[in-house]
Amino acid sequence: MVNWNEIDAYAKSWVKEAGEEIKKSFNQTLNIETKSNRNDLVTNIDKQTEQFFIKKIKAAFPDHNILGEEGFGDNIESLEGITWIIDPIDGTMNFIHQQRNFAISIGIYENGIGKIGLIYDVIHDELYHAMKGKGAYLNHRELSPLKEVNVNEAVISLNVTWVIQNNKIDPSILSRLAHDVRGTRSYGSAALELASIAAGRMDAYITLRLSPWDFAAGIVLLEEVGGIVTNLHGEPLNLLTQNSVLVAKPGLHQRVMHDYLHNGKW
Amino acid sequence: MVNWNEIDAYAKSWVKEAGEEIKKSFNQTLNIETKSNRNDLVTNIDKQTEQFFIKKIKAAFPDHNILGEEGFGDNIESLEGITWIIDPIDGTMNFIHQQRNFAISIGIYENGIGKIGLIYDVIHDELYHAMKGKGAYLNHRELSPLKEVNVNEAVISLNVTWVIQNNKIDPSILSRLAHDVRGTRSYGSAALELASIAAGRMDAYITLRLSPWDFAAGIVLLEEVGGIVTNLHGEPLNLLTQNSVLVAKPGLHQRVMHDYLHNGKW
Repeated sequence: MVNWNEIDAYAKSWVKEAGEEIKKSFNQTLNIETKSNRNDLVTNIDKQTEQFFIKKIKAAFPDHNILGEEGFGDNIESLEGITWIIDPIDGTMNFIHQQRNFAISIGIYENGIGKIGLIYDVIHDELYHAMKGKGAYLNHRELSPLKEVNVNEAVISLNVTWVIQNNKIDPSILSRLAHDVRGTRSYGSAALELASIAAGRMDAYITLRLSPWDFAAGIVLLEEVGGIVTNLHGEPLNLLTQNSVLVAKPGLHQRVMHDYLHNGKW
Repeated sequence: MVNWNEIDAYAKSWVKEAGEEIKKSFNQTLNIETKSNRNDLVTNIDKQTEQFFIKKIKAAFPDHNILGEEGFGDNIESLEGITWIIDPIDGTMNFIHQQRNFAISIGIYENGIGKIGLIYDVIHDELYHAMKGKGAYLNHRELSPLKEVNVNEAVISLNVTWVIQNNKIDPSILSRLAHDVRGTRSYGSAALELASIAAGRMDAYITLRLSPWDFAAGIVLLEEVGGIVTNLHGEPLNLLTQNSVLVAKPGLHQRVMHDYLHNGKW
């Protein structure tokens, strides 16, 4: 019998400890490299933080699997058993440029089912956390169920990337949505955008390219408050590949899918 | 002889006091109205906060003029004498939807010259402040002079609005810039976007429609750290009308103006 409370307690303490180490790193000169393209950045601190989690997890839970953004975890081909899906620093560009607006994101899954989600806004000391069936919290405050909202009163997270020429979607599709909503924002950390929706501060988040470690924690939080999570074709997200992502409050998800995305057949 | 230190001390204490009142208002139901269009929002708290400042200023400095977003100040036609330019809540949409990411913005001018700038991020208790010639600060930390940055390493504040169909600028102009920069963000508070540039966390901010109360404080801060502030035609901002705004680190401003805005002749 898996002791999820024990796993949760360890995960939370490690996240806080890692956050302290990240804050200390602000005095150091960062070693910045690029990954898949010139704007896909990684630093020595991303790598060290991932290695910190792996060491802790392997020592406490040697039979758990680990999927980490920086590739120091296991070579995961299925989600059988218990899998930690880790983004040591989500929003690395913000981490480098701003030293804020980034998060540690950890989703813990059992046979593909999200059990624990932790998103830690290090600088603001805000830990968004959820256990499946036990509600979602921001620090000690329980988050309320999300309420329905109309398109023309919605504030959504949408980056400029998806309404200008790009290799994923015709810019006119989301331009029409951007025109109709009340406002758009872009914070540069998928984990924090998902946490913002879970906390009721944003109404939807749309992106065309997200990896499992970007959303693994967020979707555990969102399920606890009634957020709807699919890709832009209306299908469940795949935790082993890149995905498009449409996360929205109830009602709004249906309207965006129906009125702007042609029920996923765009 | 004007005692600017006295004015500065009063302004800071009132800003903090107003911030406390705004935080208390989170327990009340907001009264929300629209102004120029369906997404131009104002609440009873915006109005109360502006009236609070006007009462304080008129009592302490009866000969000062006041230009306030909500129109409770004076009917200003020139900037002769000392003028307080006030946005009681910059980012009202964020205030309503998020209860964070908004700011009190106060610029104090003498004969059109910016002397004091205060931007108060109420929720994070971060006061960005500057007096002309005395440097800019975030709380007690002095902000460093801004460094030059290249377009392809810049992270800029740019809302989706200006790269989709709109009535101010051909969307292709800023789409080309958005494609070339490292990343774009949008926080939904002009004052906080300007403060972010002053603090070195963002490299530029571009918008096509800003009122004097949105930028009056920010440009005082930016001048202290070497930020370049013009409209999108390369001209100085007009403190009595709406403006387009291009604020950027040195070097980057010149490149954007030359390479993307055709030296203002777009």
